[in-house]
Amino acid sequence: SLKHIFKEIFKMGLGLQEENQKKALLVSRQKKAENTVIDLKGELVGNGIPSFVFGPCAVESYEQVAQVAEVVKAKGLKLLRGGAFKPRTSPYDFQGLGLEGLKILKQVGDKYDLAIISEIVSPNDIETALDYIDVIQIGARNMQNFELLKAAGKVNKPVLLKRGIAATIDEFIHAAEYIMSQGNGNIILCERGIRTYERATRNTLDISAVPILKQETHLPVMVDVTHSTGRRDLLLPTAKAALAIGADGVMAEVHPDPAVALSDSAQQMDFKQFDEFYKEIQKMLTGVTV
Amino acid sequence: SLKHIFKEIFKMGLGLQEENQKKALLVSRQKKAENTVIDLKGELVGNGIPSFVFGPCAVESYEQVAQVAEVVKAKGLKLLRGGAFKPRTSPYDFQGLGLEGLKILKQVGDKYDLAIISEIVSPNDIETALDYIDVIQIGARNMQNFELLKAAGKVNKPVLLKRGIAATIDEFIHAAEYIMSQGNGNIILCERGIRTYERATRNTLDISAVPILKQETHLPVMVDVTHSTGRRDLLLPTAKAALAIGADGVMAEVHPDPAVALSDSAQQMDFKQFDEFYKEIQKMLTGVTV
Amino acid sequence: SLKHIFKEIFKMGLGLQEENQKKALLVSRQKKAENTVIDLKGELVGNGIPSFVFGPCAVESYEQVAQVAEVVKAKGLKLLRGGAFKPRTSPYDFQGLGLEGLKILKQVGDKYDLAIISEIVSPNDIETALDYIDVIQIGARNMQNFELLKAAGKVNKPVLLKRGIAATIDEFIHAAEYIMSQGNGNIILCERGIRTYERATRNTLDISAVPILKQETHLPVMVDVTHSTGRRDLLLPTAKAALAIGADGVMAEVHPDPAVALSDSAQQMDFKQFDEFYKEIQKMLTGVTV
Amino acid sequence: SLKHIFKEIFKMGLGLQEENQKKALLVSRQKKAENTVIDLKGELVGNGIPSFVFGPCAVESYEQVAQVAEVVKAKGLKLLRGGAFKPRTSPYDFQGLGLEGLKILKQVGDKYDLAIISEIVSPNDIETALDYIDVIQIGARNMQNFELLKAAGKVNKPVLLKRGIAATIDEFIHAAEYIMSQGNGNIILCERGIRTYERATRNTLDISAVPILKQETHLPVMVDVTHSTGRRDLLLPTAKAALAIGADGVMAEVHPDPAVALSDSAQQMDFKQFDEFYKEIQKMLTGVTV
Repeated sequence: SLKHIFKEIFKMGLGLQEENQKKALLVSRQKKAENTVIDLKGELVGNGIPSFVFGPCAVESYEQVAQVAEVVKAKGLKLLRGGAFKPRTSPYDFQGLGLEGLKILKQVGDKYDLAIISEIVSPNDIETALDYIDVIQIGARNMQNFELLKAAGKVNKPVLLKRGIAATIDEFIHAAEYIMSQGNGNIILCERGIRTYERATRNTLDISAVPILKQETHLPVMVDVTHSTGRRDLLLPTAKAALAIGADGVMAEVHPDPAVALSDSAQQMDFKQFDEFYKEIQKMLTGVTV
Repeated sequence: SLKHIFKEIFKMGLGLQEENQKKALLVSRQKKAENTVIDLKGELVGNGIPSFVFGPCAVESYEQVAQVAEVVKAKGLKLLRGGAFKPRTSPYDFQGLGLEGLKILKQVGDKYDLAIISEIVSPNDIETALDYIDVIQIGARNMQNFELLKAAGKVNKPVLLKRGIAATIDEFIHAAEYIMSQGNGNIILCERGIRTYERATRNTLDISAVPILKQETHLPVMVDVTHSTGRRDLLLPTAKAALAIGADGVMAEVHPDPAVALSDSAQQMDFKQFDEFYKEIQKMLTGVTV
Repeated sequence: SLKHIFKEIFKMGLGLQEENQKKALLVSRQKKAENTVIDLKGELVGNGIPSFVFGPCAVESYEQVAQVAEVVKAKGLKLLRGGAFKPRTSPYDFQGLGLEGLKILKQVGDKYDLAIISEIVSPNDIETALDYIDVIQIGARNMQNFELLKAAGKVNKPVLLKRGIAATIDEFIHAAEYIMSQGNGNIILCERGIRTYERATRNTLDISAVPILKQETHLPVMVDVTHSTGRRDLLLPTAKAALAIGADGVMAEVHPDPAVALSDSAQQMDFKQFDEFYKEIQKMLTGVTV
Repeated sequence: SLKHIFKEIFKMGLGLQEENQKKALLVSRQKKAENTVIDLKGELVGNGIPSFVFGPCAVESYEQVAQVAEVVKAKGLKLLRGGAFKPRTSPYDFQGLGLEGLKILKQVGDKYDLAIISEIVSPNDIETALDYIDVIQIGARNMQNFELLKAAGKVNKPVLLKRGIAATIDEFIHAAEYIMSQGNGNIILCERGIRTYERATRNTLDISAVPILKQETHLPVMVDVTHSTGRRDLLLPTAKAALAIGADGVMAEVHPDPAVALSDSAQQMDFKQFDEFYKEIQKMLTGVTV
C-alpha cells in the first residue's frame, strides 16, 4: 500500500541519517574497517587470539599481588589487574591503597614483566598513573564522567573502558568517542553486565553487546565475567560464552585467599579454582586437555 | 567479631531454609540429580548433544511450512516449530490460523517425520493439541497463566516453557513446577531474552540463566536466539554463545521469504542464511567445516 | 540545514501514521473525546470524583470479608475487592477459595449493597463470574492472556484491567483494546507498579502512566497503591500522589488482621490504619478534617 | 512451627544489623530526627513550604538567562537554575559555556537577587564555583563520581545531588553520605527519574522515592519533573504528584524560546506555559486561583 511505501522511504531516510552520524564517529567501524590491535608489553589485544586479564579486585599488599602475578605468569599470561582506587557505594568501605597501590602494581609488573591494568577515578590522577601502569581502566560508575574520559583521551596510554551499569550500547560507544576525540584511540571496551530486575546474578551479562560492539566499532571488546555475574560458579560458563561469541578477551578476579579479601570476597577465584578455570578455557580454545 | 559470627549463623539458617524449599520442588536438581532427557520422535533433548528447533514464526500455509520442513529435514534435523495461535500486542494484527494451522503442522510433521512444536494459548485447546503436535509450547506472555500451566501439566505431552519477558529465574522455575506438580515432568525450559532498558536488541538475552537453570533444575534448557535478539545478524553469534555455555538446544526462526512474512519479518532467516547459520554452528560443534 | 528539513518531514510522516493507528483504537481519546463513566451500583467511576476500592487480598471466610465490608460501608463507600482465584508464584501457596470465594463475595455484596470486584484467571470462569461479581478484574500476570481478554470482552460486565508487571503503556492500551474490540467498553485501567531494578519497593509505581493513559484513552484510570509499593507505610503518600495527578480512583488492601492473612500479610492495612488512611485522604480531597 | 520461629529470629538479627548500619550514617533520620533546612538567600528549603527551581537547561547568553530570571522574580520566587557545564552523551553536542556560563549566572543572580543552582562536573571546578553560584548541583551521571562528591563535601556551599539514572535509593543515600562525611551537611536530594524499559517517558519518575528518602534521611527532597518525564505535557501533573507526596520542592526547565534551545528543546516550558504551570500549582497549594 501507499502507506507502506511511505513508511519505507521514511525509514530509509532515517537510516541514512543515522548511518552518517555513526560514520562520523572516530571509533566506528565505518570510519576504520580493520580491527584496532593494542600492544601491551607484547600481548596483542584484538588480534583474533583471546587475551586474559586476571588479578585481585583490590591491591591489598605487595605479597598479595605478587602471589597472583606468579600464578598468572606461570600460565604464560601477560596481563594483570588490581584496584588501587576503589569506588565503593559507602564512604566507610575500604577505598583502596591509592598511590601506594599503584607503586605496588608497578613493582610487581616490573618483576614479573606483566602489563598492569588499574582503575583511575579522578582526572587529576591520570598524569600520575602514566608512571605506574600500562592500561588506565575507567570503571562502570565513571563511564559518563566526561572530564575523566577527556583526561584519559589526552595521554598516550591504552584505556580499558567499562560499560556503565545502565548505559545503552550507544552511550557506551559515545563514551569511547569522548576518549578518542581527544587523540587517544587505544581503547579496549569491556562489557561487565547491566542492571536489570533479575536478582540471581549481581548484574545481567549482556552477551549480545559483544557482537554489536565488534560490528559498530573497530575496538577490541572484553567481557568481565566477575562483575557481570557476581558468582564464582558462573565465571567459567560465561567466559566460554564470551569467547564463543567473539570477545577479544576475558577478565576475572583472582585472589590468594578470597575469604579474607577486603572487597568482593564472594566472587573472586582462589588459585585452585583459577587453575581449573584456565584449564577448561584452554581445552575449549585448543580442543586439547592441558 | 561477634556481629560477624551472628551474621554467618543467620545466613546459614536462611540458606538451609531456602535449600529445603528448593529441595521440595519436583523440578529441582536436588530432587533428581540426573538430567531429564525428552524423546521427540527419536531426538533426545537434554542428552548432552545439542538439539535444534527451526521453523517459521507463524504457520501461513501448507506450502510455506512444507518448504521449511524440507530444508530442516535435509540437514538431518528432527524438530520443527511453527505458530498456529499467535499472541499479538494488537487485536488487529494477524492472530494465526488456529486449528487450521495445527492441521497443517500435523500433515507436514507426518510427511517429513518431524516432531512439531507449537504454541497453545488457552487451557481449552490443550486437549485438541494432543492430536496434532508433539510439543506444547507455552509462550513468554503466558508463563504465569497458571490455568494453562496446570492444563498442560495434566496431559502426557512434552511442554516447552518459555521464560516470561520480565520473569525472574525463580519465577520461571516455579512456573515449571506448576506443570510438573500436575504430573507432567517432560518440560523443556527456554530462555528467550528479558525486557531491559537496552534498545539495541529486542530483548536482552540473559545468557547466565542457562547455567543457573541447569544447576537448579534437571530439565533441558534451550535458547531462543530469534526472540531474545530480534536481529538476524545476531542469531549466529548468540547461538554459539548458547551452545558454549551449555544449552541443550537452540531455537531460531526460518521462513521461505521473510520479507513477506505475516509476523517477525525483520528477524527470520531465509534458506540461504539458514544454510550458513547451520554450517557455522556445525563447524563450531565438530571442528569440521561441512 | 537540508538534513534537518528532511528529518522533520520524516518525523511528521511517522507521526501521522502513528496518530492514524491510534485513532483507529476504540479505547483511544481520539475515537471518543468524552470520558467513559462506569456505573457500579450507583458509584460512578470516572466522573471526576475519585472512587475507592478496598478489601482483603484474598477471600478467606465469610466472616473476614463481612468485617471489611462493614467498615467500608461505614465510610459511605460502595466498592469492595477480594480475591477468590489467587495467581501465586508457587503452586504450593494458597490458591484462593475459588467458586466458594465468589459465593462469599456475592453474599457480602448483597448484604451490604456493595459492588464486588474480583479477579478471574480463566476464560472458562468468565460466564460463572457474571452471577457473583460486579467487576471482573484481570490481573497483571494475565494482561496479555489474550484468550481471557477476549472472553471478558464478550460479556456485559465491567472489567478492571491491571497493567502487566513489565508492560509498556502502549501494550497496556492494546490489551484494553482486545476487550473493547469484542464489544465490552466498560473498562477501568489500573496502574499497579512496574518491575525495575529498585528493591526498596516491591514494584516501581509509574505515576506518569496516569496522565498518559487519561490523555491517550477515554477510560477511567485507577492506581493500586498496595501492589505498586508493597509497603504499608507508603500507601497514604502514594494515594495522595495518585489523586493529585488525576487518577479516577485508588485501590488498597484492607484486612481485619493482616498478621494472619493467607497472602500479602506485610502490606495490608488493619482497620485502625485504614481509618487513618481514609481520614487523611478525605482531608486532602475536601480540605476539611473529618 | 520451629522453622518459623528461627526465621523470625534470623530476620530480627539481620534487621538489627541493618538498623545499626543506617543509624551510623550522618544523613540518616535516625542520626538526626529534625529536618535539615537550607537557607538559600532567604528561601528556606525543607521547612515545609515547597520551593521551586526554574531556569533554562543550559546557559546560552546573558540575555537568555536574564529573561528567565525576570519572569521567575516576577512570581516572587528566589531560585534559578542554569547549566554552564553540560554533560552530554556525544562529545560533539553543545558542552555548555563553562566558566563564561558561571559568570553570566553570577551577574544575573546579583541583579535579580536570586540564588543560583548550577551543575559542576569536575572536582577541580568546585573551588571556582564557590565564587559564582549558591548551590553546587551534582548531576545524575556523577552521582557515584566519588571524587566529585568528596570535593563538594569539603566546601561550605549547599549541594543539590541528583539520583543516578540507575541508582538504588540505598546507593543514593550513600552518595549523600560521601558528601556529608567530609563535613558538608547542606544537601538537597533530587529524584529525577530512573531508567526502565518504558519508553513513553524519557525516564520513569520513581515517586515513591520521595517519602522513602524523607523517612530515611533528614535532608530536603526535590523532584525534577523535566528530566524524569522528558515531556512538556507531563510537567504539571507530575509536579502536583510530587507536592502531594511531600516533596520539598519541584524543579523544571524554562526557556525564553525552547524551539531554538541548544539542548532539551522538546521539554522546556516557554513563558506562557510557565505562567500556566505556576498558576495551577499555586491553585493546588493555596486552594485559591491566582
